[in-house]
Amino acid sequence: MNTTAEATIEADPTLPIIRITRDFAATPAQLLRAHTDPEIYRQWVGPNSVSTTIDYWDARTGGSWRFLNIHDGQEYGFHGSFHEVGPNRIVQTFTWEGMPEGVSLETLTFEDLGDGRTRLHAQSLVDSIEGRDAWLRSGMEVGVNEGYAKLDRMITDGSV
Amino acid sequence: MNTTAEATIEADPTLPIIRITRDFAATPAQLLRAHTDPEIYRQWVGPNSVSTTIDYWDARTGGSWRFLNIHDGQEYGFHGSFHEVGPNRIVQTFTWEGMPEGVSLETLTFEDLGDGRTRLHAQSLVDSIEGRDAWLRSGMEVGVNEGYAKLDRMITDGSV
Repeated sequence: MNTTAEATIEADPTLPIIRITRDFAATPAQLLRAHTDPEIYRQWVGPNSVSTTIDYWDARTGGSWRFLNIHDGQEYGFHGSFHEVGPNRIVQTFTWEGMPEGVSLETLTFEDLGDGRTRLHAQSLVDSIEGRDAWLRSGMEVGVNEGYAKLDRMITDGSV
Repeated sequence: MNTTAEATIEADPTLPIIRITRDFAATPAQLLRAHTDPEIYRQWVGPNSVSTTIDYWDARTGGSWRFLNIHDGQEYGFHGSFHEVGPNRIVQTFTWEGMPEGVSLETLTFEDLGDGRTRLHAQSLVDSIEGRDAWLRSGMEVGVNEGYAKLDRMITDGSV
């Protein structure tokens, strides 16, 4: 099973949007669980150098969430709301508390490719090209790719 | 007291954003109450031809909301999440349930002009220029201006 593919991370040419695409050897229901079960989510999200602790997590339409990343003894908080949690789509807001003015609207879509494979489409929308480009320059690709590699391993070992 | 000014409604030249600006003879705290107290909000929001019923409403960071517009015996549902509710800023999501795929991220800012006056800045961000332009063509300016005129009257008569 080939699970070494990197995620595709693309900036929209004219809109303040980042789009990430990544295939998984999992069903849409498994990817939904990976993004809504806090005990699963905290184990794979983010780069390898960071551990994640859930503060609160209510993954239903109208719920909200907050987690902490711990890196070199420092805590970094993130929080947001679940605008929609459906079988094939999650829409949520996202703020890094180090820059509380910044809010992105995240849309995750699970595209069933058949044969137990699913394509994840993740769209991040912010309100300026400068804000979008700051995310792209932040080294986000490390967290995205290391996180999805951890999720691949959890899918393979049956924990998702 | 001059409260007959129309709201300024502007499309960003390049981003999928609508910006509304409107001055009120009220303090920031009054405008916060007008947007967070459901009994006040339902009385002024929207065009004169519509009445609004609150389904649920939890105006705090991490809360959610839903209301129904009733027009000619038909019900139209709207819902979203409160990403942030602060003294000078509200960030919330917004979906009209007639088009459930569409989600906008709304940022309201209350700029204190002194002397009991406040400038409301309302920014609506969506993920396409086409979606933004559909809102602009929907007749939204009627609801915006009639709604704010109702709010002016509620401020004048002391109910906010």
